[in-house]
Amino acid sequence: MAIAEITVVPSGVGPSVSDYVVRAIKVIEKHEGVRFQLTPMGTILEGELDSILDVIREVHNCAFDDRVERVLTLVKIDERRDKALTMEGKLSSVRSKLAG
Amino acid sequence: MAIAEITVVPSGVGPSVSDYVVRAIKVIEKHEGVRFQLTPMGTILEGELDSILDVIREVHNCAFDDRVERVLTLVKIDERRDKALTMEGKLSSVRSKLAG
Amino acid sequence: MAIAEITVVPSGVGPSVSDYVVRAIKVIEKHEGVRFQLTPMGTILEGELDSILDVIREVHNCAFDDRVERVLTLVKIDERRDKALTMEGKLSSVRSKLAG
Amino acid sequence: MAIAEITVVPSGVGPSVSDYVVRAIKVIEKHEGVRFQLTPMGTILEGELDSILDVIREVHNCAFDDRVERVLTLVKIDERRDKALTMEGKLSSVRSKLAG
Repeated sequence: MAIAEITVVPSGVGPSVSDYVVRAIKVIEKHEGVRFQLTPMGTILEGELDSILDVIREVHNCAFDDRVERVLTLVKIDERRDKALTMEGKLSSVRSKLAG
Repeated sequence: MAIAEITVVPSGVGPSVSDYVVRAIKVIEKHEGVRFQLTPMGTILEGELDSILDVIREVHNCAFDDRVERVLTLVKIDERRDKALTMEGKLSSVRSKLAG
Repeated sequence: MAIAEITVVPSGVGPSVSDYVVRAIKVIEKHEGVRFQLTPMGTILEGELDSILDVIREVHNCAFDDRVERVLTLVKIDERRDKALTMEGKLSSVRSKLAG
Repeated sequence: MAIAEITVVPSGVGPSVSDYVVRAIKVIEKHEGVRFQLTPMGTILEGELDSILDVIREVHNCAFDDRVERVLTLVKIDERRDKALTMEGKLSSVRSKLAG
């Protein structure tokens, strides 16, 4: 299992790009094996690396349309093989140390 | 006002780096003008650009210690000058379109 | 055609990671359809999006070994569909404007 | 000494952004203590951390103009304190190992 963050930046539109974020979320929701969480700076994905790479390909592609001829997609992939890495696990580990 | 995301990667330690995230959060908490939100892939900051750059400098520096001789810091800065950009505003804009 | 930048950060080793960069380069060199250029901060890839995603998967995987249980991979994908995007084209466009 | 990579993405213009890259290079050239190298995916800076943060602030600000109301700036900072880190040193270390 890996955790990844993806941010898609369509060129030539905006300043507002929320329509494109909505479109990306709808693409991600079709992938049953991938959980996701929206943040103010991107979308975080949790799943197998291959599934995550499939999502990245589709999300990147879906940003192209009549107005958008160029897309910049930013990805951070964090994978740990000695123990399961989950979105909740990463946060709770920090929060318990902050509280303690 | 700008929104930024910062991820600090100390080299030579790990796989667990939550102690370093905790240390970074304590540094950020001292900056009254900067609001923040922890995510599974980094920390999101909201404030004036100059304050955010101060936080980045301090958070990067605080990751060096006896065990860490190299630090990689990743930053994304998103600033909009035609209207106020807030962490909540970015999320609610997407959520209302998803709901609607 | 797309251009991408990939940076792989193995956890728990280092400060020196050049052995891991060398390993990544050897993986990239096997992909005939992908051209690459090494920079001080990562490796830039040029090719079809699908080929680039294959390279990203393999390069990320090859960083795991006996000493490395966690890998962070950073990717930026830049794709333009109105005209061909090449590494040389992007640089020469800037350089001719700087010169002129 | 640190090495950083900066990529500035002006919103609402495009697909071509080379005019904005040129503008950024002219800002960087004014900083005597910072060396730089242009790549197809950004600009790499070498200098003291404080100088690099000054450059980041100025380059980010210079991307705003009549047409651009939103700017996304991406930064990667790599600092090593056990030995000097230079753009040439990072590359030559990898190249000598590749050469065998």
